[in-house]
Amino acid sequence: MTDAIGPLVRIGTNRSTLRSLADAPRQGDEGAPDAWLEIEPAFAPALDGLRAGDGLVLITWLDRADRGVLATHPRNDPSLPLTGVFATRSPDRPNPLGLHQVTVRAIEGVRLRIGPIEAIDGTPVVDVKIGWGGS
Amino acid sequence: MTDAIGPLVRIGTNRSTLRSLADAPRQGDEGAPDAWLEIEPAFAPALDGLRAGDGLVLITWLDRADRGVLATHPRNDPSLPLTGVFATRSPDRPNPLGLHQVTVRAIEGVRLRIGPIEAIDGTPVVDVKIGWGGS
Repeated sequence: MTDAIGPLVRIGTNRSTLRSLADAPRQGDEGAPDAWLEIEPAFAPALDGLRAGDGLVLITWLDRADRGVLATHPRNDPSLPLTGVFATRSPDRPNPLGLHQVTVRAIEGVRLRIGPIEAIDGTPVVDVKIGWGGS
Repeated sequence: MTDAIGPLVRIGTNRSTLRSLADAPRQGDEGAPDAWLEIEPAFAPALDGLRAGDGLVLITWLDRADRGVLATHPRNDPSLPLTGVFATRSPDRPNPLGLHQVTVRAIEGVRLRIGPIEAIDGTPVVDVKIGWGGS
């Protein structure tokens, strides 16, 4: 059933002062810092038209996540009932894709200053889209 | 640079009355129908806790997209300037991941009635998250 899917390619990398999961807030709006998004040079033409101030949705590949987890306590709080990962925002899930709503602060060639973003340093970025239109 | 990424697995399939791209609106809020999301039985435990009325974000793999396109005319309108795909919502992009904000209408085992969604019949689904918290 996976014949039509993938492979994913890395289109960029999150460069952050957050070095470990222990340092990272759970969501971007919970005190996360700004970071640099470094786009792979081969994909530079795909940035054309982006400007400082734009709202973006980033999709990351959360490479530290546990892909075997199907149920979890939301927010890692054992007092909350065990819940299927599709009913949560847990990074642990079959395909550990992260969604991040960020603002472009500045653009320097293939480097975009973005934030706030809770992803840690080195996290692969797999897609960038202009801001969420539907909400 | 792609060592840490993937592979993506199909966690479900979109079952829609939309049979071709020519039939499909460009966004879910532009007249798209409801559809059935059929989850692969192996991932059934990940649905636990979802209820009718929940808002979800679905991530699909747009398997008809052209992954070689780096710039496009937004909304396929030639009067709009050629724009990098990361500054658009075009399905044509290096990793053709689709984002869809939907409401759960009903749940029948591993089948979720969801909508509105502009993805065509057979589109692979790679992730489901409880509704967008940040917007």
